[in-house]
Amino acid sequence: MQTLLLNSDDVHENANMADLVPAIEEAFAAFERGDAQMPPKSYIDLPQYNGDFRSMPAYMDAGDWDAAGIKWVNVHPDNGSKFDLPTVMGTMVYSSPETAFPLAVMDGTELTMKRTGAAAAVATDHLAVADASSLGIVGAGVQSYTQLEAIATVRDIEEVVVSDLDEERVANFIDAFEDDFDVRPGSIAEAASCDVLSTVTPVESPIVSRDDVGEHTHINAMGADAEGKHELADEILLDAKLVIDDHEQTTHSGEINVPYNEGVLSDDDIYGDIGEIVVGDREGRTADDGISVFDSTGLAIQDVAAAHVVYEHAKENDNGYEFDLLGLGDRSE
Amino acid sequence: MQTLLLNSDDVHENANMADLVPAIEEAFAAFERGDAQMPPKSYIDLPQYNGDFRSMPAYMDAGDWDAAGIKWVNVHPDNGSKFDLPTVMGTMVYSSPETAFPLAVMDGTELTMKRTGAAAAVATDHLAVADASSLGIVGAGVQSYTQLEAIATVRDIEEVVVSDLDEERVANFIDAFEDDFDVRPGSIAEAASCDVLSTVTPVESPIVSRDDVGEHTHINAMGADAEGKHELADEILLDAKLVIDDHEQTTHSGEINVPYNEGVLSDDDIYGDIGEIVVGDREGRTADDGISVFDSTGLAIQDVAAAHVVYEHAKENDNGYEFDLLGLGDRSE
Repeated sequence: MQTLLLNSDDVHENANMADLVPAIEEAFAAFERGDAQMPPKSYIDLPQYNGDFRSMPAYMDAGDWDAAGIKWVNVHPDNGSKFDLPTVMGTMVYSSPETAFPLAVMDGTELTMKRTGAAAAVATDHLAVADASSLGIVGAGVQSYTQLEAIATVRDIEEVVVSDLDEERVANFIDAFEDDFDVRPGSIAEAASCDVLSTVTPVESPIVSRDDVGEHTHINAMGADAEGKHELADEILLDAKLVIDDHEQTTHSGEINVPYNEGVLSDDDIYGDIGEIVVGDREGRTADDGISVFDSTGLAIQDVAAAHVVYEHAKENDNGYEFDLLGLGDRSE
Repeated sequence: MQTLLLNSDDVHENANMADLVPAIEEAFAAFERGDAQMPPKSYIDLPQYNGDFRSMPAYMDAGDWDAAGIKWVNVHPDNGSKFDLPTVMGTMVYSSPETAFPLAVMDGTELTMKRTGAAAAVATDHLAVADASSLGIVGAGVQSYTQLEAIATVRDIEEVVVSDLDEERVANFIDAFEDDFDVRPGSIAEAASCDVLSTVTPVESPIVSRDDVGEHTHINAMGADAEGKHELADEILLDAKLVIDDHEQTTHSGEINVPYNEGVLSDDDIYGDIGEIVVGDREGRTADDGISVFDSTGLAIQDVAAAHVVYEHAKENDNGYEFDLLGLGDRSE
């Protein structure tokens, strides 16, 4: 029995957004229905290396399919300057829930970008205006690409405004997408006045002000992944239909963590979980809504759902490298 | 940058006991000194498949070297009858603590057997009589082989008595070792009268009685890994110098879990942790000691220590398959 090894290119090619966005939607739904298991992330802190490891095991049952696995991921901010390595690297082990056989080991870094884009697309589908055609992106780093890729599968995006202080990043982003979209550089205010805005920066002091945001803009706040991170002015969060992916994670390390823990924002200001909207227990955007915000921290069930999509596509396309990791030879094939 | 893939054969060949036993001893010492991190195992229970997954992340610092990683392992008791697959399968991701780069992905099943044997050897080294020359083994399953392999590195074992109801298992075990040892089949009582006894069975009702055990026998109780498991009569545990690997794990799922939770055995009956003995805070065997017992449940730090040994040997021997999992190409090489 062979374990399929999928490198970053394999994950990129097989994380088809047309399948991935619905799979992430099913993950949120399974979580809401109680058909998922997601033990709390556990951390190993290594201050001597200014880094940490996080383990994210999960299981989810979508009815037609289920998926299990674990992502082992880190944050080592000095990696770039000291070792020419990414700050964040992930390894995903994707296993059969029925037998626990490790079906695949795949690059978890690319997987994280894909599933994060897909989560923004799910939220956009439920919370953006139906005729949204413009997308603003603040922060043109590695996470920005999948925002556009994914959101374009749920709305007819024509115009894209990308804002970043780093001109090379902006140029690279435009290069990547100018054939398919009307992409241009712009200020944060120009990006924030689009129908949809995705913020994907690591800042700890808000860079989007209340006045920047369009009257009916839906915002995907994707950047916050640790205590202290904060991209949006508190007034935006307080005025918006505020949707979160998980109460524990968002209040600890999501976009809302700072105002929540300062008492500026309380549970009364949170409209609901994305899972409640996806299963129909709460309404998404209604005609009366102004701005909306999705605070996404990233759930382990998104990783296993994404790994499922990648694995199934890779098998179909004969991608990847088969390796008899466990030495089981021809058994059960 | 390449991630080294090591299958079960690679792990087997590179888990050199002469290096592995000292590395496991260093893991126990690091844990005792507070130079290790080991978040509690987290479980995903899948009653619909009669199985579970466990994630075991860990970091340890031995001073000269350190190691980090995660083992993702399962228990699916129906695997054998339904799928011709092992009940337990493991996948180990071994990472650089400094950068978090995944240095290796390796078979965690073989690794578990090796590090479990090595743990018994560490305990035997500190707790068996110095001139121990006979080893009894109760249970001739997959975990029994590394008991002999490892223990033979710390004592001059000449005579081995193996006891199992399954004659084929006994024959296979004898086949594997008869060139190097005087190995013979025997009763549980014959095995238990040896200088060292290792029990590696999954039983829930004691099979070794107090009368079976030799006057100065050291027992490695390796079999218990879940609530209800119980190999040794309570009188053995009560009379012995009783050493455990970890209080939380042993009282929950180790050899002592049943009598401990029934109140037959209390903390006063536990002599100490293996780590305390290894660092010299408590004495191992003394001239006054009769029988001794090591209750081993298996710690995540043993896995990362073993992965370190396997990885270093495999690199030296040019074993394994190099794979650019993260798509980093030639960076940092």
